[in-house]
Amino acid sequence: MNNAILNHVSIRKFKNEPISKETLDTVLEGAIRASNTGNMQWYSIVVTTELALKQKLRKECHFNQAMIEEAPVVLTFCADLNRFNKWCKLNNTEPGYDNFLSFYTASIDATIAAQNACIAAESLGLGICYLGTTNYTAPKIIEILNLPKDVFPVTTVVLGYPDETPTKTDRLLLEAVVHDEVYCDYCDEDIEALYAEKENMEFYKELVKINGTNSLAQIFTEKRYSKQNNVAFSKTLLDEIKKQGFMNQE
Amino acid sequence: MNNAILNHVSIRKFKNEPISKETLDTVLEGAIRASNTGNMQWYSIVVTTELALKQKLRKECHFNQAMIEEAPVVLTFCADLNRFNKWCKLNNTEPGYDNFLSFYTASIDATIAAQNACIAAESLGLGICYLGTTNYTAPKIIEILNLPKDVFPVTTVVLGYPDETPTKTDRLLLEAVVHDEVYCDYCDEDIEALYAEKENMEFYKELVKINGTNSLAQIFTEKRYSKQNNVAFSKTLLDEIKKQGFMNQE
Repeated sequence: MNNAILNHVSIRKFKNEPISKETLDTVLEGAIRASNTGNMQWYSIVVTTELALKQKLRKECHFNQAMIEEAPVVLTFCADLNRFNKWCKLNNTEPGYDNFLSFYTASIDATIAAQNACIAAESLGLGICYLGTTNYTAPKIIEILNLPKDVFPVTTVVLGYPDETPTKTDRLLLEAVVHDEVYCDYCDEDIEALYAEKENMEFYKELVKINGTNSLAQIFTEKRYSKQNNVAFSKTLLDEIKKQGFMNQE
Repeated sequence: MNNAILNHVSIRKFKNEPISKETLDTVLEGAIRASNTGNMQWYSIVVTTELALKQKLRKECHFNQAMIEEAPVVLTFCADLNRFNKWCKLNNTEPGYDNFLSFYTASIDATIAAQNACIAAESLGLGICYLGTTNYTAPKIIEILNLPKDVFPVTTVVLGYPDETPTKTDRLLLEAVVHDEVYCDYCDEDIEALYAEKENMEFYKELVKINGTNSLAQIFTEKRYSKQNNVAFSKTLLDEIKKQGFMNQE
């Protein structure tokens, strides 16, 4: 197992090779074995393989990234209170899960299931890539995948047999992200020391040059994850969470 | 690997046996290898082992559950924009991550890291249990663990060598949570069929009797996850997300 975890690289190029039902079911069984709140399983997994649907998702939701279309399987992990609410109502008891806590809880549980699916997939020789775009285009995903009220797309994973062998990406040292006993805040010297290795990698130096920026940090703040985009996407995201029925705090 | 995933059970009783630094570091290295948005690593992991701190967390945050004190290690996975923001500012570029999208993204990434840690731990013979209470008592956790602005506790995992061998808990059938191509909504008959096996388990029938309820669903809506509690916790959670600096959508 630890091999699947320790050797993880995201795969964005896939062979034109389908995933057998047996293999996919093993991945999905792995997903649903995951820990979840109260064993209520407040999530659903939409398995999309049809070309026309993948093309729609690619163009309208995932910034036209080719991997959405090329991967044989696209998994959309959703926070799902719809199934549970229906079960409660059918048992003549009124569910109280139309609020932010339930949404956040279900989002966490959907994500735990997603990561189980990813590790199960990787240990079977498949490659995976998470798509952050899901959080930018929730309204479109909801429309294309017919998600009803009380259901929300949390994250998307593309799945397939790897057609590339990328090198492992860098990570900050453990000491940068781990805190002993309580959180130990960082002074300027800490930050400089913890990011020095990253900033001095040739790959990133070249990236700074290509982007015409003064620093690596600036690529994130100005090119990739700008305040302007974040603010716009935040509004869409919060509006849609409300629209799907998760903001009744009364 | 798939063994660690497929045999998962939550462990709530632990041997009085510490976890070596080497083993713990392997678990944490597993956590940080996880996929994350833009490789920005918007999370931190607080490793708490001191008895006095664990007792405080147990009593003030985690509903007095003994496992928090008895487990040798408590891991609090946090959404962390503080480190990244400081890095940006030190590089004279203004971060724009004080919004809900960044909070939600970081929450997902912290959760993916948490599940990697759990599987790494389980494959090393450790047992784990997630604590949902983290989302009910964020203000207290923030206080006890000294979490600064731009940092938020997402989930907590207790870790230790198992001193119990619980049986695997039930799950709904795959067909209950998996949707082909797009979401297929459930009719009453679907819900009845999908929950029948669960409702007919002796364990749950006994639980309904003990609780004096009419159905299993009612235990969730009335005893365990009531609307009243959910609404109160939702307000606390949203207030605290704002207080920690993640709700500036202007």
